[in-house]
Amino acid sequence: MNRVALGLSYDGHDFEGWQTQPHGRTVQDELTKAIEVIAQEPLTLICAGRTDTGVHARQQVVHFDMAAVRPMSAWVKGVNNSLPPTVSVQGAKLVDAEFHARFSALSRTYRYYFYSSPVRDPFKRFMTWVHYPLDLQAMRSASACLLGTHDFSAFRASQCQAASPVRTLHAMKLIEEADHCYFEIHGNAFLHHMVRNLMGSLMEVGLHRQPESWLENVLESKNRSLAAKTYPAQGLSLWNIEYPEHFGIQELFE
Amino acid sequence: MNRVALGLSYDGHDFEGWQTQPHGRTVQDELTKAIEVIAQEPLTLICAGRTDTGVHARQQVVHFDMAAVRPMSAWVKGVNNSLPPTVSVQGAKLVDAEFHARFSALSRTYRYYFYSSPVRDPFKRFMTWVHYPLDLQAMRSASACLLGTHDFSAFRASQCQAASPVRTLHAMKLIEEADHCYFEIHGNAFLHHMVRNLMGSLMEVGLHRQPESWLENVLESKNRSLAAKTYPAQGLSLWNIEYPEHFGIQELFE
Repeated sequence: MNRVALGLSYDGHDFEGWQTQPHGRTVQDELTKAIEVIAQEPLTLICAGRTDTGVHARQQVVHFDMAAVRPMSAWVKGVNNSLPPTVSVQGAKLVDAEFHARFSALSRTYRYYFYSSPVRDPFKRFMTWVHYPLDLQAMRSASACLLGTHDFSAFRASQCQAASPVRTLHAMKLIEEADHCYFEIHGNAFLHHMVRNLMGSLMEVGLHRQPESWLENVLESKNRSLAAKTYPAQGLSLWNIEYPEHFGIQELFE
Repeated sequence: MNRVALGLSYDGHDFEGWQTQPHGRTVQDELTKAIEVIAQEPLTLICAGRTDTGVHARQQVVHFDMAAVRPMSAWVKGVNNSLPPTVSVQGAKLVDAEFHARFSALSRTYRYYFYSSPVRDPFKRFMTWVHYPLDLQAMRSASACLLGTHDFSAFRASQCQAASPVRTLHAMKLIEEADHCYFEIHGNAFLHHMVRNLMGSLMEVGLHRQPESWLENVLESKNRSLAAKTYPAQGLSLWNIEYPEHFGIQELFE
């Protein structure tokens, strides 16, 4: 069998997330169909980060095994010909059988984009609109407590299937650009809705509805009902997956 | 009667253009419905630039007359509450009865965004994808002949209803940004499909399918069948409408 890795980008708006659903249009469904047109055999796709309904991906990584041998351009141009314009294969390569899109990943980076304005901007399609001004400095100070290894139960969706609520956050930054901001978060892995739940609680601090110290209290409580609501999917993008360098996965996006 | 001017932005993807159609979802239809919720009386909207199916608008200007008196915030927040997320009123103001969104306009600016890449990028939603590399310098040289007053019949759609094919282009520029380009064109007014037809022919030069001198020959021929195909709506945005300063229309977007 040959193992192929694909680099993938998608606009999540029109999808019920990554994973195949009985009654939904998902990225996995669309991509599987498009690859099977080229492969002419059934296959199973494994992805690095199973994004939720409405969440986007700049650099998603996927692998699959198959008997058929095709030129790599078939997995890019050929597959793209069968995909809707909101999903696109960026690159393809043959990988060792030991490579696994999910289990070989060392860490993941997500970005949450948002803008603060009295009116909505239809061109900020990949950002969440916040009606009121935000205190970014307060958000930065409050978020410092999240770095490192913690039990993130307070920011975990009730339907989360992970065996453990403990995750390690390696880095975070809150960046202000011309007319918008993003919160970038880099960790070994993330619980279900974790980034959107963190964002919701950070916004409470940014809007001065809660003091800076509140976020740490919520984290330590391990109590989901003390944290704020889940923030919308619209602003969230899976930004990058980091792998051991010898797999050469970053080439898929170059 | 009170005359109200609105500043409007929209993502044109899901609309059959600006103008009300018997069997289409148009921006005019959506906006009229949303304003009538607030106004509680029937009204007619006049816009500055009637964009085609799929064309976007950063700064569209609209006016309407009505007996009802409402605070200006009702025409912004109130109307936005009834609009889909792809359309947004940016500002509203009372204007003199002599102001007319279409006839008071001095000139219009359009931008056509595009990017050249071997693969499509789902996040470049407001740009047209060009598979091959482009010679921007050749496109700049070729476009110089378009400046000034000309008969633009060669770039006019057959269904164009304008009385005259003569238009004046005041300025043009072709700008390269990080990973994309745009062609900005500023003129007194534009014929039906004129910008998209010009773009299609400029692309022929950029792809070296035609020499630089070809564009001038096409212009002088006044023959639509000699020009290239109409380029896709996806990359085109109505960027700005210029009015005499005393109307204060630019405030709608500040």
